[in-house]
Amino acid sequence: MQISSNQHVYDLEQPRYYGAPIHPSHVPGYFYTLHRHHERGASEARTSASGFMYTTEHSGTHIDALCHQAEDFHLYGGRELDASIQTSQGFTELGAETIAPIIAHGVLLDLSRYRSVDRIVAGNPISQDEMEAAAQKQGVQIGEGDVVLVRTGNGALWQDPEVYLQAGGVTGSASQWLANKGVRAVGADNMAWDEIGLFDPDFNVTLPGHLILLVRSGIYIIENLFLEELARDQRYEFTFVCLPLKLRGATGSPVRPIAIFS
Amino acid sequence: MQISSNQHVYDLEQPRYYGAPIHPSHVPGYFYTLHRHHERGASEARTSASGFMYTTEHSGTHIDALCHQAEDFHLYGGRELDASIQTSQGFTELGAETIAPIIAHGVLLDLSRYRSVDRIVAGNPISQDEMEAAAQKQGVQIGEGDVVLVRTGNGALWQDPEVYLQAGGVTGSASQWLANKGVRAVGADNMAWDEIGLFDPDFNVTLPGHLILLVRSGIYIIENLFLEELARDQRYEFTFVCLPLKLRGATGSPVRPIAIFS
Amino acid sequence: MQISSNQHVYDLEQPRYYGAPIHPSHVPGYFYTLHRHHERGASEARTSASGFMYTTEHSGTHIDALCHQAEDFHLYGGRELDASIQTSQGFTELGAETIAPIIAHGVLLDLSRYRSVDRIVAGNPISQDEMEAAAQKQGVQIGEGDVVLVRTGNGALWQDPEVYLQAGGVTGSASQWLANKGVRAVGADNMAWDEIGLFDPDFNVTLPGHLILLVRSGIYIIENLFLEELARDQRYEFTFVCLPLKLRGATGSPVRPIAIFS
Amino acid sequence: MQISSNQHVYDLEQPRYYGAPIHPSHVPGYFYTLHRHHERGASEARTSASGFMYTTEHSGTHIDALCHQAEDFHLYGGRELDASIQTSQGFTELGAETIAPIIAHGVLLDLSRYRSVDRIVAGNPISQDEMEAAAQKQGVQIGEGDVVLVRTGNGALWQDPEVYLQAGGVTGSASQWLANKGVRAVGADNMAWDEIGLFDPDFNVTLPGHLILLVRSGIYIIENLFLEELARDQRYEFTFVCLPLKLRGATGSPVRPIAIFS
Repeated sequence: MQISSNQHVYDLEQPRYYGAPIHPSHVPGYFYTLHRHHERGASEARTSASGFMYTTEHSGTHIDALCHQAEDFHLYGGRELDASIQTSQGFTELGAETIAPIIAHGVLLDLSRYRSVDRIVAGNPISQDEMEAAAQKQGVQIGEGDVVLVRTGNGALWQDPEVYLQAGGVTGSASQWLANKGVRAVGADNMAWDEIGLFDPDFNVTLPGHLILLVRSGIYIIENLFLEELARDQRYEFTFVCLPLKLRGATGSPVRPIAIFS
Repeated sequence: MQISSNQHVYDLEQPRYYGAPIHPSHVPGYFYTLHRHHERGASEARTSASGFMYTTEHSGTHIDALCHQAEDFHLYGGRELDASIQTSQGFTELGAETIAPIIAHGVLLDLSRYRSVDRIVAGNPISQDEMEAAAQKQGVQIGEGDVVLVRTGNGALWQDPEVYLQAGGVTGSASQWLANKGVRAVGADNMAWDEIGLFDPDFNVTLPGHLILLVRSGIYIIENLFLEELARDQRYEFTFVCLPLKLRGATGSPVRPIAIFS
Repeated sequence: MQISSNQHVYDLEQPRYYGAPIHPSHVPGYFYTLHRHHERGASEARTSASGFMYTTEHSGTHIDALCHQAEDFHLYGGRELDASIQTSQGFTELGAETIAPIIAHGVLLDLSRYRSVDRIVAGNPISQDEMEAAAQKQGVQIGEGDVVLVRTGNGALWQDPEVYLQAGGVTGSASQWLANKGVRAVGADNMAWDEIGLFDPDFNVTLPGHLILLVRSGIYIIENLFLEELARDQRYEFTFVCLPLKLRGATGSPVRPIAIFS
Repeated sequence: MQISSNQHVYDLEQPRYYGAPIHPSHVPGYFYTLHRHHERGASEARTSASGFMYTTEHSGTHIDALCHQAEDFHLYGGRELDASIQTSQGFTELGAETIAPIIAHGVLLDLSRYRSVDRIVAGNPISQDEMEAAAQKQGVQIGEGDVVLVRTGNGALWQDPEVYLQAGGVTGSASQWLANKGVRAVGADNMAWDEIGLFDPDFNVTLPGHLILLVRSGIYIIENLFLEELARDQRYEFTFVCLPLKLRGATGSPVRPIAIFS
């Protein structure tokens, strides 16, 4: 990887603060307090300030570790869960610390643009046909090892948690289509990639993408991405970089992904 | 930035878990609990697990935001602190969310190798002369905008907190030398870049690098790096990538920096 | 203190859970997660479960420690604040751990009943005259060392945070009247004893009771009490017991006060 | 309950601070940070300070709720555990909020004095015979509904976590003897009532008292009591008061128990 003088870096992370959108399963989300303050009258001219953050690992822009999901009490790779794998302090296998740094060919599928809507809301999830058609229209191809980012347009509404949580998502069949292509990771500008609360009759579960991608295919999901600038500039191919924290045993990690276009 | 087939990615983050080395000012450091467990007998085949992490922002491998330090109650840029800038929930200026993604030419100065010791311990901090000599011996030059990583060898002892905290650091004059070169960020494989507890008579403070780099120069400091593999392979120049989380108002961010060698 | 067979214990604590009413200064309030679960297939028949609670010390029913408030940067007793007293991990003087167990003659002043309203809302704070008249009507006298509980009727609305936060409170002059009587502690069934946001021109501050009682008089304030059953049974005098946790350096403590009537 | 002028209140809580003794299952124990500071130059003379506490509910002096323990995946009362009872945010039955205020006849059994040792250490747990003999020697009788406190002498060593955790405890048969008497609660000046790590062959479990008292008998256990002053004054009978916080669904609560002697 070489740095070129004319490259542009797109920041794909939403800002972190208390009150940002959060799925009900992950309240209270993120919080930060500053307890060490700079103070006048210290013993030397230099002073320090620092604080404490607490966050569920699925708050804000984050990546799901493979241990986040299971099917019939089995993890990705077929390993049955037991007390030696699932502990009160996290998982001894497939935790966030096992996610390698991701540097990959990235593809943006702008489904919001494809549908000619500002944002895709719940009730009409994104199908495989639409994904294929959007890729074709954009002139991009999805290859093995790629990272595919799907834009629903909801990332523009991060400041409005109630509205943000009504975002639409991806159907199970579309997730399966991506899994079949052997992508390394997927991501979207909504809370859950899938549409929250929608039961998928083909796969007999809610959040079918979580089952298909994480459990059955070992493909990571990145959520709450900010894709507005990338879409505005119609950058459909780029180098995607995402560096998850090695949180031992955690089911995911907050991340600041970027797209590099040169 | 292009991906090349023969590039190698070096992971520069130490693993995160409770009990890892932590500066006394930042106890209890990092902690993770898993409260949502996969369970048998759920209403559908797919199940979720997730948890909660709490961490001081200066735990583990992390980057210092500019608001972390002040001189005579002033921040970098000369702004005097007041209640509108320093709040109970963080800073309204120069917080972690203001750190742009860092993609830069990286240089490793292996001072441990230069001194022919396994590790540099407290009591004999790294001088400007040694830095210059190590750079010359390694055949590297430091340019404006570079990120300079200093290896003390202590990163190999992360598993032993008591020993790790006795690491040596960098003198104020060596920090000043780097600041004069206009580097973008510096980092080391110890807790504080500077040697903890050492008063620097030239600058009349402890942790002189924190004063010189953060407050006076606007140069970020990255701490608790893992540099052993980079040093083993004698990779002295590389592309350095570090993507701090946009923690609004926080005085730093946990990070997973990487070095890419191609 | 003897236990009598016909005594009745009134529980004056509101239940604790995430989502309970909380003053904006103290969000996110209280939260509990269970990370150690009972599990089948353990190595022995007995299993344990346990969790983690996080709470600002002014969440739910709680008592204010004297260090919670200051006047012109001085604490109760006249001590000027400095870095040796106010630290990032709490106060070295007048913290919650210095509050002795409270066992005292308790008096309920039911101002809601006195005004013949369901609840006292913001905009018409309780005056000294009303307190005196209510005491007289109830046939109770307030003596030195007593604990005086004021009912506004808002405790019945704990389940409705938005409404609860619009509760009325006590005027500065009424607080001063109680302070003059030498009471040991006061309490109310609202968030702040005082009316939140109301500036008191007599004392030139908001939350005048906090200034008068805590800083000037060393009298504790207990907030978010549940007084409905006590009022229903018209128990205007009782033995009041409140046992604050010895949270070293904290500015208050969650408590479960009781009133014993025999 | 009447207040008498010559009563003496014994405080049975150990102080709370980070670094206090904690069972390995409950690290990091308790922590407090002060993020809202009193500051000079505020908009009015009155200022506030407040912070955040985080604690496992089994840190410091605390009471175990009945849901803390199970036998063969069943709780006290015979209810089998399932996902409707055991949730990620606590238990929907038998949580700390279901513990009524405890006001009872209290009995101290000073086993340390009985054995004529400063403290009872691990390796020689307290038998039923010793309990009976100590009660007889002290001239006290244990009745239904009483609260029985057992002194091992380890409460004097709270400042030394390593030593404190080596305390001795109570045998299963002695716990059964107390359960047979129908006591309401028991307590001790050690971490776990039982001796930590000791397998009891009679009951085929570790921590047999937890099984016998909590799961089989519905009797609460109070741990990490401070009994030194009570023992010094040889107060073997008293009124015992303990007011657990109504932490919804939690497996225990921090408490500040007192003994009142008149």
